[in-house]
Amino acid sequence: MRTVYWDQLSARDQTEALSRPAINAGDQIHDAVEQVLSKVRRHGDQALKQLTENFDGVKLDSIKVSAAEINAAAEQVDESLKQAIQQACDNIHAFHEAQRPTALDVETQPGVRCEMVSRPIESVGLYIPGGTAPLVSTVMMLAIPAKIAGCRRTVLVSPPSIAPEILYAAKLCGVDEVYSLGGAQAIAALAYGTESIAKVDKIFGPGNSYVTEAKRQVSQSHDGAAIDMPAGPSEVLVIADEEANPDFVAADLLSQAEHGADSQVVLVTPCDAMAAAVSAAVQQQLAELSREDTAAKAIANSVIIICHDLTQAVAISNQYGPEHLIIQTREPRALLNDIQHAGSVFLGDWSPESVGDYASGTNHVLPTYGYVRTYSSLSLSDFSKRFTVQELTADGLSQLAPCVTRIADAEGLDAHKRAVTIRTEFLEGLS
Amino acid sequence: MRTVYWDQLSARDQTEALSRPAINAGDQIHDAVEQVLSKVRRHGDQALKQLTENFDGVKLDSIKVSAAEINAAAEQVDESLKQAIQQACDNIHAFHEAQRPTALDVETQPGVRCEMVSRPIESVGLYIPGGTAPLVSTVMMLAIPAKIAGCRRTVLVSPPSIAPEILYAAKLCGVDEVYSLGGAQAIAALAYGTESIAKVDKIFGPGNSYVTEAKRQVSQSHDGAAIDMPAGPSEVLVIADEEANPDFVAADLLSQAEHGADSQVVLVTPCDAMAAAVSAAVQQQLAELSREDTAAKAIANSVIIICHDLTQAVAISNQYGPEHLIIQTREPRALLNDIQHAGSVFLGDWSPESVGDYASGTNHVLPTYGYVRTYSSLSLSDFSKRFTVQELTADGLSQLAPCVTRIADAEGLDAHKRAVTIRTEFLEGLS
Repeated sequence: MRTVYWDQLSARDQTEALSRPAINAGDQIHDAVEQVLSKVRRHGDQALKQLTENFDGVKLDSIKVSAAEINAAAEQVDESLKQAIQQACDNIHAFHEAQRPTALDVETQPGVRCEMVSRPIESVGLYIPGGTAPLVSTVMMLAIPAKIAGCRRTVLVSPPSIAPEILYAAKLCGVDEVYSLGGAQAIAALAYGTESIAKVDKIFGPGNSYVTEAKRQVSQSHDGAAIDMPAGPSEVLVIADEEANPDFVAADLLSQAEHGADSQVVLVTPCDAMAAAVSAAVQQQLAELSREDTAAKAIANSVIIICHDLTQAVAISNQYGPEHLIIQTREPRALLNDIQHAGSVFLGDWSPESVGDYASGTNHVLPTYGYVRTYSSLSLSDFSKRFTVQELTADGLSQLAPCVTRIADAEGLDAHKRAVTIRTEFLEGLS
Repeated sequence: MRTVYWDQLSARDQTEALSRPAINAGDQIHDAVEQVLSKVRRHGDQALKQLTENFDGVKLDSIKVSAAEINAAAEQVDESLKQAIQQACDNIHAFHEAQRPTALDVETQPGVRCEMVSRPIESVGLYIPGGTAPLVSTVMMLAIPAKIAGCRRTVLVSPPSIAPEILYAAKLCGVDEVYSLGGAQAIAALAYGTESIAKVDKIFGPGNSYVTEAKRQVSQSHDGAAIDMPAGPSEVLVIADEEANPDFVAADLLSQAEHGADSQVVLVTPCDAMAAAVSAAVQQQLAELSREDTAAKAIANSVIIICHDLTQAVAISNQYGPEHLIIQTREPRALLNDIQHAGSVFLGDWSPESVGDYASGTNHVLPTYGYVRTYSSLSLSDFSKRFTVQELTADGLSQLAPCVTRIADAEGLDAHKRAVTIRTEFLEGLS
């Protein structure tokens, strides 16, 4: 890990030390995805089967996974994993259930009642990546809030063959439909629909660069689908003082690094000795990991920043805006008020990132790549939308009428004014 | 207005009756905007001045509007308008102040504390269109929630010369900086920054097709800015039964129609006589409007749908998903629970759309073009973002550890597991 002294850097070098790799999909990915979307729109299921054979090497009889297959999968999941999934589900459920919005009902002036109400998004699509590590946790993170929100259709797609754990979790979390589909073709099916899959309103979940680009493209198309948030490589920033345990810090940095060679890992500390100890511990622990090669690449690109105090450490963290922020200091909560930009914060020695990834109850779908400046951690509100309601009494309208007609005059909108005066004149006629 | 009987239409013709015009920016607009964005990124203020001279015919000495100019403008606004603006501000403030989030703090299991906290978006840009009708109401709708949320910089841009009412409202609502800029160049300046304008994090507000396309393009660029929501032509759908006043309904339809020739206007009623009466009233009132030509064009494209009962009327409204939904029936609130997709709902005879446009307290920035299926009415939450926090005690971690390590095993993520076991082994060593 490269180590830099923050105060010795120019502003430009400080920016450089916190810079992220470029992630624009190249023209090749853009065009390939565009073609896949177009094929699925034109040829529906036939295109889905063809593309799945080409990309996944699987000939699908049926795109839909049957209830029988899902039930059979549950038999293959061992009891200890079932228990772990249940405990994680309970915590995730408790935290998201607590996010239910309270109805808003305000009389802004006598006879003028304004409300805000919430409605579930009708149908949602959940993309679960396949590959070597079946992301059973992502099923829970997406399906549980969808069910609490009351979405009428919760549709899961994942590349064939779908791991039994995924099917088990899908069933446990109340997913309504499951399809054996991955890549851009899965996103196309969700966004536009085919003979076997009805289109959904919004698509959630992580994926490779093709999936990410496909989500971006369908979100820009008027008859496509909304998406959860823009995507980028996963990140962690750890703030540690001289009290931190360097082995814990190293383990946290590595748990981020194993996600991918492009993972971003940053340590910020006011303590030279801590920087050195963490660096040594990282090297030592690295050798013990099954994903050593991946983690080593991420670590090679990562940085340790030595700053002069914790106030500056928080400022550096805010400048970076990490997806995950771990604070291992004597009084971690004392720094929380000054944290402006983060996806999820982990306070103290006993809160490693992996508890948030799986089971504390918070959502692990978080804005990354600096999008924390404007985007929120995934929450119940992403599975619903809110609209306002107003109801005026005749008296309420009469009281508000001079204000509305005067502003309508200023904006030169006659008919806006007329919609009020036609009513007040009617009321005057009555009195 | 065209009148159709819903039950006599095929499913395809029903979809057609509720279809919206295509609004994809053509290649010409796309390319022109791309060039403007690129010019401003490369040449900063110099490009802004050049483009403003070309497009607005104004030679700017200074892009920034000085405090002296803003104060002078206030002198020109007459007292009745000032009072109207103040009353509207008070109501908008009351409704948005009531939207402040309550902190979420949940112990999901003993020793596992999960929170959700909110932080303001640091800097926001508000685009206010220029032209014949200065949209003083839009200043209030954007600046008031920005200030309540606590945004550190609230930056307003509007094409020169900016109307005194706009400057007055900007000052009243606490806008921090005002710039004489319109069109795609204003969006470029907000998204990327120049010598005189620091970049903002998120851009809000309506605009013409160039502004809309520029917002779309910068929202897709990693170093650009987030935006409020996708844009489309304004819309109203009125549900009226035999008790409605056809003159009121006609006035409401026309107050939408005067926005633009592409405005969408729909009446749904189970009553033949109401359909005929409204149609006649529209023709009669149309002749009295200053914007008659615009409104007439919108009315020519609009439709009256005769359905068999109010339940079906609600279903039709849900299928369309109107930006504004006005319900003028004997018991309007009885229908509210079944309304799934709308931007803002106006209940009863005394709640014309223009009260929501200006002064009831609700926000007039609403999703249109069917985006109500997934997007919300603009609210305080759009000016902030939320992140989660977790803090575990040593006991809390010990209790959760078997769950986390078992799922990490299933996902094949060693380092995730190690971040937990390195801590539990440490704790076991202590005991």
